[in-house]
Amino acid sequence: MANIGLEASDQLEVMRLHVDAALEALVEDEIEQGAGQVAELCASMLLAGGKRLRPLLILLAHEIAGGQDTEEVMPLALAFEMIHTATLVHDDINDEAGLRRGVETIHTRAGLAKAVIAGDWLFVQGFGLGGRYDEHIVRLMAKCCADIAVAEFHQLDHVLNLATSPEDYLAIVRGKTAGPFAAGCQAAGLVAGLSDEQAAGLGRFGMELGIAFQLVDDLLDLRGDERMGKPRGADVLEGKMTLPLIHALTLSHGKERQRLATLIESFSDEHFDELMQLLDRSDSLSYAEILVKTHLERAVLELDAFPESQAKSLMLHITGYVMARHT
Amino acid sequence: MANIGLEASDQLEVMRLHVDAALEALVEDEIEQGAGQVAELCASMLLAGGKRLRPLLILLAHEIAGGQDTEEVMPLALAFEMIHTATLVHDDINDEAGLRRGVETIHTRAGLAKAVIAGDWLFVQGFGLGGRYDEHIVRLMAKCCADIAVAEFHQLDHVLNLATSPEDYLAIVRGKTAGPFAAGCQAAGLVAGLSDEQAAGLGRFGMELGIAFQLVDDLLDLRGDERMGKPRGADVLEGKMTLPLIHALTLSHGKERQRLATLIESFSDEHFDELMQLLDRSDSLSYAEILVKTHLERAVLELDAFPESQAKSLMLHITGYVMARHT
Repeated sequence: MANIGLEASDQLEVMRLHVDAALEALVEDEIEQGAGQVAELCASMLLAGGKRLRPLLILLAHEIAGGQDTEEVMPLALAFEMIHTATLVHDDINDEAGLRRGVETIHTRAGLAKAVIAGDWLFVQGFGLGGRYDEHIVRLMAKCCADIAVAEFHQLDHVLNLATSPEDYLAIVRGKTAGPFAAGCQAAGLVAGLSDEQAAGLGRFGMELGIAFQLVDDLLDLRGDERMGKPRGADVLEGKMTLPLIHALTLSHGKERQRLATLIESFSDEHFDELMQLLDRSDSLSYAEILVKTHLERAVLELDAFPESQAKSLMLHITGYVMARHT
Repeated sequence: MANIGLEASDQLEVMRLHVDAALEALVEDEIEQGAGQVAELCASMLLAGGKRLRPLLILLAHEIAGGQDTEEVMPLALAFEMIHTATLVHDDINDEAGLRRGVETIHTRAGLAKAVIAGDWLFVQGFGLGGRYDEHIVRLMAKCCADIAVAEFHQLDHVLNLATSPEDYLAIVRGKTAGPFAAGCQAAGLVAGLSDEQAAGLGRFGMELGIAFQLVDDLLDLRGDERMGKPRGADVLEGKMTLPLIHALTLSHGKERQRLATLIESFSDEHFDELMQLLDRSDSLSYAEILVKTHLERAVLELDAFPESQAKSLMLHITGYVMARHT
């Protein structure tokens, strides 16, 4: 994987292209074997772009853990990307989202029934790939995926629940977003031959990075961003209790809190500026920014256990990228 | 597993109770580990009864293949039952079914979003269990599950398609219903240490039995039956092209075919008797019955490769049961 002489961002781009090519090959192989329409429909979402953060982190975690052969960890990286895409397809059904990665969502194009099945197919592909590894790694993946489901239930129960606490929020984020980052990095370490304890360090790195990543997502939803096909305030519109909202609800009082509650409960884009003013008054976006920094610092600390290397620089580059996304 | 002295049906009942207990233990364990509401919701469907044909066949296939320790194959048996239940939960969403195994379906009780996630959770549990086995078995499971998705797409595309051929029908049944029977029996043989070739024989047994099983299901839908919570003609109402309908459409001509087409396209219970009369005219139910017999005979032939044993008698008893269901 070493591409000495390239800038970090170019090196990551080369790796991303490798991941894309592997995903394409996999889908083509499935189509050849008769998966036809379901594979094509899934491919339209799977190959519609995306930063491939999860597979890149898995490849890099494997490398800093001493792994020599990228081929030995690639199926794991693809497995996590396919499972991630499966959850997106099923999420989009539940959120009634019309666009994802700039393309029409599967349920919009093919209807509910096929979208449910397409998500299942992606899950199956992911597990088929992941199931090639040791039982220990399979259990880690299964636990991670079961935790996603638990967190999603938790999240659904907290839609428009103004009493959602920061603890509720973190439990949801750990299960749904950060858990897969953690499990992927940890499993990659195990594939490379790390001890359980060393691999757990990579798991903590992934968890902290994943939490920061979600917090940045929350911020971007409010600030508007480069994320394709999602209007600003989409989370608020869906009733998702993001950390800035939870923080502002906790700090506000009296009429201000009441107005904030009303805005959240019956949000529409015309109230966007007013919502932002109320969030500013309790400095809720700054608070989320501080948390991003804290979690990224913790992530970086976990990498101290590993010797300097090109792969480590690239992992640090990714943590820097997560930081830079919202600034 | 031997319970010498008991009738075959009682022996199978003892095995079924073992499977139920193992499923219950698994769910309780998950709840203890924090899976809470999603596990409880899934348990309500998973433990609502059911004949457990798939896990029973897996346990028996393992035994006739020379497997000594039921514990070594039980996770595989549970995996297939959980994956089967996952597909039921997602199917019920698509079919807008209100009842299953006599209890309210998950989407009826908990809504679409949670039903999608609950199905995902069941899939994950199934793969977590199946992923403990050799890569060869994992690939077999993944292929089987991917084929289910492909067949479900195929089936959706043939809803109310009066040009559906017997070949389309068989492709759907092989993928969706019979494939999991086949993969389960084949994998059980591999766990017990059979050669690929010997295990493939058990796979063919499962495939033939599974096709017969689906044909009987088609017949029961038209004849009314003991299946809990499903009104007669439910398949016709859902636009599913079952074999008796396909057969009758193929054999009928002129006004009769036109009337049959109209009945199928705009079916309601009040037309049930008329539909049955038209099916009788082309002897379509008898045709399906003959096919049931043919496929069961082929299934039984595959068992000739294995020595007489209690397990083999029980497998023959199950093939007899499938036959008896519709008579």
